[in-house]
Amino acid sequence: MRIALGIEYDGSRYYGWQRQREVISVQEVLEQALSKVADETVNVTCAGRTDAGVHATGQVVHFEVSQARRDAAWTMGVNSNMPADVAVRWACPVSDQFDARFSASARRYRYLIHNSQYRPAILGNGVTHHHRPLDVERMQAAAPALLGENDFSSFRAAQCQSNTPWRCVHHLRVQRYADFIVVDIAANAFLHHMVRNIVGSLMVIGRGEQPVAWLAEVLAAKDRNVAAATAKADGLYLVDVTYPQQFKLPKGRIGPLWLPDDLTADLHP
Amino acid sequence: MRIALGIEYDGSRYYGWQRQREVISVQEVLEQALSKVADETVNVTCAGRTDAGVHATGQVVHFEVSQARRDAAWTMGVNSNMPADVAVRWACPVSDQFDARFSASARRYRYLIHNSQYRPAILGNGVTHHHRPLDVERMQAAAPALLGENDFSSFRAAQCQSNTPWRCVHHLRVQRYADFIVVDIAANAFLHHMVRNIVGSLMVIGRGEQPVAWLAEVLAAKDRNVAAATAKADGLYLVDVTYPQQFKLPKGRIGPLWLPDDLTADLHP
Repeated sequence: MRIALGIEYDGSRYYGWQRQREVISVQEVLEQALSKVADETVNVTCAGRTDAGVHATGQVVHFEVSQARRDAAWTMGVNSNMPADVAVRWACPVSDQFDARFSASARRYRYLIHNSQYRPAILGNGVTHHHRPLDVERMQAAAPALLGENDFSSFRAAQCQSNTPWRCVHHLRVQRYADFIVVDIAANAFLHHMVRNIVGSLMVIGRGEQPVAWLAEVLAAKDRNVAAATAKADGLYLVDVTYPQQFKLPKGRIGPLWLPDDLTADLHP
Repeated sequence: MRIALGIEYDGSRYYGWQRQREVISVQEVLEQALSKVADETVNVTCAGRTDAGVHATGQVVHFEVSQARRDAAWTMGVNSNMPADVAVRWACPVSDQFDARFSASARRYRYLIHNSQYRPAILGNGVTHHHRPLDVERMQAAAPALLGENDFSSFRAAQCQSNTPWRCVHHLRVQRYADFIVVDIAANAFLHHMVRNIVGSLMVIGRGEQPVAWLAEVLAAKDRNVAAATAKADGLYLVDVTYPQQFKLPKGRIGPLWLPDDLTADLHP
């Protein structure tokens, strides 16, 4: 039987999602806990393999097991076998047609910037500190240039293994909450470092070092050397994955923490 | 000359504020960094000595130094000598009349409860997880019983060293933000474990195990055995300290993170 799980993690301590020899990964921690509860070796497939230091509130995985268990075994049972920085948020049986990676029609990320003169101490590894003032209106004004189906070669890491640089961006919003800036982006899929490269270039525009129209020029250049430096991993969260409704997966809150699902909702009236 | 600082810290790793032999404290980390920048031994006095595992966004300290330094030395200079979970938020010279502890007219705390069936992974040591549903309306309805000048013996830890159990509570609000509940309380000062004991009793009312009117009964009993168990340290933040305006201290945002200063502001319209 096939089970799907919603997973949340603080990626600070981990060398990324993917299991590797000699270094700790989120996948390894999860598979060890699942194997213990299932009493057999469990291998998971995830929706998005996040890099070292990247977090998630909405990661989705699936796995096969031979024996049925109570639903609580896959949530509370697995949680009690994992460290405090990884947790199962929901579990549900799925059909054999469901694949956490290949059934996904969209991924959504949020990038949190702590934009204040001095660095934070609370959630220090869960936000990216930027001490120079960023103009959110300029960043938001640039954003529409990246919407729709485009060749994102300018925002693609050299080591990216995708067959194509084409991706379709569904939304890209930039909004301020107190000293924090949230960049919210969804696409059918993402190239390696694509979110962090887009955020890096938005920050250059936010600092006023490039005009708003520059983002469209960077996209059009199809050249990674034209875009800005990659933003740090600290502030990045995989917050949601979209699947066809037929699979009837539960929907958790997007977060992280108490951020509203819909960023257009006004947090500070 | 005397300097005041605003301090933020994630207390998860620390055995409380106060310097102790053999275990790590926030005070020790701060004094070491200050002594390095000042090039002399610096001892600080704080507004509120928080317990092990308790956090702060609005701790205030003062200290004496013989040599003047640029303001940036006491902020960025000190921050670069401290670990990621402690940070200076502001610095300003103050008169010799200012004392971080004795000049304070009020302290304000926030207590964050993650009220959801399954435990969180993000900010895991910065919220208190409670898996049973809590009725915020009942908790808020009980709160006014504690306002004003009262004998808080029922909410006082056995080891409390205060000369008197009387304290004046200025406000006590309970509000929900998505899966999170924030208890916001201000008083002239607090007894040992007073906030955590009040929160523990509010949670019993929120679970429906005691009626709303029970909180007033607990207060009237003046007996620690009548109140509920002490709530965990994880969710507690010292967020603000009030001083007479004459000292002209800077005001930081209260937080933690992007929580609005005024909890009556509607976060999720």
